[in-house]
Amino acid sequence: MVRLSVDCMGGDHGVSITLPACQAFLQSHPDAELVLVGTAAALEGARGWARCTPVLATEVVTMDDSVEVALRRKRDSSMRVAIQQLKAGAHVCVSAGNTGALMAVSRYLLKTLDGVDRPAIATVMPNRLDGYTTVLDLGANVDCQPEHLLQFAVLGSALVAAVDGKAEPSVGLLNIGEEAIKGSETIKRAGELLRAAGEGGHINFHGNVEGNDIFKGTVDIVVCDGFVGNVLLKTSEGLASMLGDFIKQEFTRTPLSKLVALVAMPVLQRFKHRVDHRRYNGAALLGLRGLVFKSHGSADAYAFEQALARAYDAARNRLLDRVQDRIGDTLQAGLAAPPTGDIAPETAA
Amino acid sequence: MVRLSVDCMGGDHGVSITLPACQAFLQSHPDAELVLVGTAAALEGARGWARCTPVLATEVVTMDDSVEVALRRKRDSSMRVAIQQLKAGAHVCVSAGNTGALMAVSRYLLKTLDGVDRPAIATVMPNRLDGYTTVLDLGANVDCQPEHLLQFAVLGSALVAAVDGKAEPSVGLLNIGEEAIKGSETIKRAGELLRAAGEGGHINFHGNVEGNDIFKGTVDIVVCDGFVGNVLLKTSEGLASMLGDFIKQEFTRTPLSKLVALVAMPVLQRFKHRVDHRRYNGAALLGLRGLVFKSHGSADAYAFEQALARAYDAARNRLLDRVQDRIGDTLQAGLAAPPTGDIAPETAA
Repeated sequence: MVRLSVDCMGGDHGVSITLPACQAFLQSHPDAELVLVGTAAALEGARGWARCTPVLATEVVTMDDSVEVALRRKRDSSMRVAIQQLKAGAHVCVSAGNTGALMAVSRYLLKTLDGVDRPAIATVMPNRLDGYTTVLDLGANVDCQPEHLLQFAVLGSALVAAVDGKAEPSVGLLNIGEEAIKGSETIKRAGELLRAAGEGGHINFHGNVEGNDIFKGTVDIVVCDGFVGNVLLKTSEGLASMLGDFIKQEFTRTPLSKLVALVAMPVLQRFKHRVDHRRYNGAALLGLRGLVFKSHGSADAYAFEQALARAYDAARNRLLDRVQDRIGDTLQAGLAAPPTGDIAPETAA
Repeated sequence: MVRLSVDCMGGDHGVSITLPACQAFLQSHPDAELVLVGTAAALEGARGWARCTPVLATEVVTMDDSVEVALRRKRDSSMRVAIQQLKAGAHVCVSAGNTGALMAVSRYLLKTLDGVDRPAIATVMPNRLDGYTTVLDLGANVDCQPEHLLQFAVLGSALVAAVDGKAEPSVGLLNIGEEAIKGSETIKRAGELLRAAGEGGHINFHGNVEGNDIFKGTVDIVVCDGFVGNVLLKTSEGLASMLGDFIKQEFTRTPLSKLVALVAMPVLQRFKHRVDHRRYNGAALLGLRGLVFKSHGSADAYAFEQALARAYDAARNRLLDRVQDRIGDTLQAGLAAPPTGDIAPETAA
């Protein structure tokens, strides 16, 4: 039995999306049970559901709430109560709430693992191999030091091993050229650390990769600082959305092109399915003493269900233990020693 | 009369691409003349062309040559001789040769302008407004300081004013959130500098922008350090190429989908033209005492012709004077004072 704690109020649409997603998820996962967290009124719709336990919260963290508000003012928010459930037997928590707040509250309530200075956010992006590439960090940490990038590599390896069943997933360090001499001082030193960790058998280090390697599927995991990760994610989302809209515009420009669109529909649908970002929904917050997954705020029921499924897979495959084991190994090897002169972490919206 | 100096040997294809491009360019630009730089054998094909002056070089910088080789060993390369022509009356130089070498040789021969610590590379990316967004820096400078980002903003403003005829193009600072408190220390300080320059009337500063704003067309110019710029450019190229190939694959998967492709061809062609990156070929090297434009190494004749046209527009609209004026203004205002403790610049491939 895997128990998921669900913040039913999070995201742009709240229960109108999360509850149908939970229902569909329960049907396809007979050994899952859910803790549904929300206001009494919102949870009315789930009254009497099998394998579901309602837990009430009186407040909701909105998408615009600052970290400050989420942490200090809304102490009975559905987000916070849902995370708290990890201490009461839930194996993993899922929320579509705002990223900054979710990371801050998770970090406050759960604390980080020994050997992890900063938790990271890992997501997946589709690649040419019809698989996906895991990228981290995605916005939680700016001004990273080399040691942090090594920690991200270890955290990402544990994630991919757990969720995708690859024992030794390959790791690439995002850089502006494949040669080891490229990049900033931080990246060069990170490259040395990752190489040493690879030689010590702690990770499967491929070497430097470039932005286009994410989509080539050159490696399983791409590691970068949170600033670069956030920029590349938002750039990719913006480009994909623009291209999608351009296709739509061209196929609806004239009565004739609309007719063509009808004929081309099955092909266009296959293309759409192939790059459907909803299938890849569910980013992992890694490095905490508990498993938290973040759904896209604008997720629909199908997308939120995918996030639940990813969270379920991670919990079922003991992601938390794996992360702890891997981080422990690198700590023992003296590779992940916390850097001195740490800069206060920051969380992106 | 605008005189362009063309490195005919650069790029993946050399004269087989550059000479046809030059021919087409001359036809549509009756007041242009070209200095064609290459080996005697390679320039045979252009013998007797009107408005063309051949200048011989005995060596060629390959796409794999290091900066070291380009600078110190191949002293009679077509790239170097082409840049040198700027001192003999040419108004602008165009090369499809390797970026690192082109920047290094340009910098060595031309030197930077007063008030510019590091030259930048600016390119354009298509946006939703069916226009384009200028992005810099794209790989020449890692570990940028706030003062460098301000310089990039001023250089970019001069470029867009000259090439696109916008008197006061808007500038956005690439960040991980729109709020001024987001981002690394460098970005925050850069934001303050850019705001001050905006208030002083030196640039038209919009504020922070995010990765997706490049494609939204939120601002005319997006400023970032060379590491981030290189990552976002390569990520975008990789994603666009993957999506294009996916469309192709879906439309050729079965005999039926091939038939559908025939019917949909005019629509697909219009889409293809709309996002054709060849139309946007021609990146500017800014901040030097001379105008140099860089074509994509894999450019075909059409793409190389676009790079020639962009370079021509820049020279015709006195880009160099404009850059000098703008940089001079900000220097006088005490905004672009060179930072102390400068880190050695680095050039990306």
